[in-house]
Amino acid sequence: MHINGLPHSTIWYDYDTQSVAIIDQTQLPHRFEIITLRRLEDFCRAINDMQVRGAPLIGATAAYGLAMAIAQDPSLECENHAAKQLLATRPTAVNLRWAITRVRSEIHATPPALRARTALASADRIRNEDIACCEAIGEHGHGLFQQLLNNKKTPGSTLNILTHCNAGWLATVDWGTALAPVYKAHLAGIDLHVWVDETRPRNQGASLTAWELAQQGIPHTVITDNTGGHLMQHNMVDLCLVGSDRTTASGDVCNKIGTYLKALAAKDNNIPFYVALPTSTIDWTIDDGLSQIPIEQRSAREVTHISGLDEQGNISEIKLIAGSNAANYAFDVTPARLISGLITEYGIFQASPSSLSVLKTTLTNH
Amino acid sequence: MHINGLPHSTIWYDYDTQSVAIIDQTQLPHRFEIITLRRLEDFCRAINDMQVRGAPLIGATAAYGLAMAIAQDPSLECENHAAKQLLATRPTAVNLRWAITRVRSEIHATPPALRARTALASADRIRNEDIACCEAIGEHGHGLFQQLLNNKKTPGSTLNILTHCNAGWLATVDWGTALAPVYKAHLAGIDLHVWVDETRPRNQGASLTAWELAQQGIPHTVITDNTGGHLMQHNMVDLCLVGSDRTTASGDVCNKIGTYLKALAAKDNNIPFYVALPTSTIDWTIDDGLSQIPIEQRSAREVTHISGLDEQGNISEIKLIAGSNAANYAFDVTPARLISGLITEYGIFQASPSSLSVLKTTLTNH
Repeated sequence: MHINGLPHSTIWYDYDTQSVAIIDQTQLPHRFEIITLRRLEDFCRAINDMQVRGAPLIGATAAYGLAMAIAQDPSLECENHAAKQLLATRPTAVNLRWAITRVRSEIHATPPALRARTALASADRIRNEDIACCEAIGEHGHGLFQQLLNNKKTPGSTLNILTHCNAGWLATVDWGTALAPVYKAHLAGIDLHVWVDETRPRNQGASLTAWELAQQGIPHTVITDNTGGHLMQHNMVDLCLVGSDRTTASGDVCNKIGTYLKALAAKDNNIPFYVALPTSTIDWTIDDGLSQIPIEQRSAREVTHISGLDEQGNISEIKLIAGSNAANYAFDVTPARLISGLITEYGIFQASPSSLSVLKTTLTNH
Repeated sequence: MHINGLPHSTIWYDYDTQSVAIIDQTQLPHRFEIITLRRLEDFCRAINDMQVRGAPLIGATAAYGLAMAIAQDPSLECENHAAKQLLATRPTAVNLRWAITRVRSEIHATPPALRARTALASADRIRNEDIACCEAIGEHGHGLFQQLLNNKKTPGSTLNILTHCNAGWLATVDWGTALAPVYKAHLAGIDLHVWVDETRPRNQGASLTAWELAQQGIPHTVITDNTGGHLMQHNMVDLCLVGSDRTTASGDVCNKIGTYLKALAAKDNNIPFYVALPTSTIDWTIDDGLSQIPIEQRSAREVTHISGLDEQGNISEIKLIAGSNAANYAFDVTPARLISGLITEYGIFQASPSSLSVLKTTLTNH
């Protein structure tokens, strides 16, 4: 996607400097800064502090982090240590585990002298496949948008999409998951407008999704997380579309805290609620999202304090609360019964065990 | 209720200085400041800029504003002008209209020389009745809490209440609506914990409700507006309790934006969802909240900017969004079907036309 008119991706290996470059997403939307990661600690900090975030991008970052650690020390001991450190950064997103498992399996039988190169090639493949995967999600979602537009009572009018958090290209390597269909449809000339949930506490909607959409020239409006229900009651939303951090084999979707509330409102107002996700986000080992997915609790400070641009143009932090405690659950689980469909790189599937078992067979045969 | 251990109310007429004193709620929780209102413009600005807010307190403030305008000029022309200006400040809360209508009806047949004194007496009565009314809501709600505690599987444990926005004593003259039962139950020794929705965009939960509860020594935790659904899914909420800005004769409740989403989550998890309100909040002229209640749209700046305490200890504003538009709907409507009951000063009623018609008869006979 574009930043200031130039094409960009969120992560890449720089063969000249032998380091990994990322966009520091904690500085957006106020500053666009590229930083480089070299040591295992750099990668762990980048994931932990959410300089990179979004399940697919966390996966790619972890893959590069493991590859860079192995480049510095190809021993199995170092590999084990690096994998453990990376896995500990964020407990909810399943892509992290998936990416690390994949790199490890691909270097498994490789002689020590070739392990570094093989691991890096594996990370590069994860990166490039993520781009292709998100683009395919975009194509399938674009088809869905076209159907919804055809079904609208007033043809030719704007398609209003509500999204929560950031499942745009900044959450992946490129294209995004929930926003990939938006970009594809926009490029195809469909008239779109996106309601962007600001997504407290970290405001990824207001900071990242709005910024992404503005950079691609797509009409959008930022709203507080409280607003979507009212808009849905008043026919101002045609479709809800979000990403996923982990999806169970039964179709339960774990995503940014507050997703469940929007799914309830969509159901109550007969509005389609879709989730866009690469199949790497599916955790085939579990069926019950509510009881089986660990929900990360982050620092209360993300709730009690907030940062933005002050009058002097500096990014500064202010305190919102005086002397009270806060709790910060990062994700919630939307039960499959509230989900209209899952948009994957292999097409759109129902959020049900039977439909997902068909997808699993597709993956196995792939 | 108490501030720094001393009893306070939110508004009172000072007979020495012949002015009205209020707490400037835009400075809370960081600064506790009393300001005085004298001229009509002072009252309109105080309501408009939300130095006072909350349906009951807006009503009392408007009553004093009208009385003070009449004290300066007892002509019918001035009265009409003042009423019109005050009514234009906030379109959603029905208490504003109710209070102005009441003062006007009480001075209707009064000779010009006595109009000012009569209007002030009327405003004082509205103020004092609001205190009594909220205290009665507190007693009825306290009874409900006791029932819910008795029904809990583990008797004697903490009652977890989730509330949205501020319907505490700062939204009224004293006691509050949704928080009045909390204060009554706390005084009676019931073990309580309150989940406080921060309530974007103006953060009245984080700024006012949390501060109120801290001042009374009641255990509470601030959460983002996205969090309540997750807590309800995990049995961490025994009861949702909110206020109302306008309630229809059929029991639909208009309250701070986002209330509807919490009501949906409560329904989905079989958790009681109660609304506490003085009967002055009921608009007997309408039946359909969704189509008949005008929803105030406030400045986008309340969404794009936020203020708090900076590192130097000054209240300062920062910008959250770069170059995107925002929308700011201040209220939403929760349909009666999602509401377990309405706690009024006359007891608890079902949110239904038949139950409310019984209440109406009570009011008529009162």
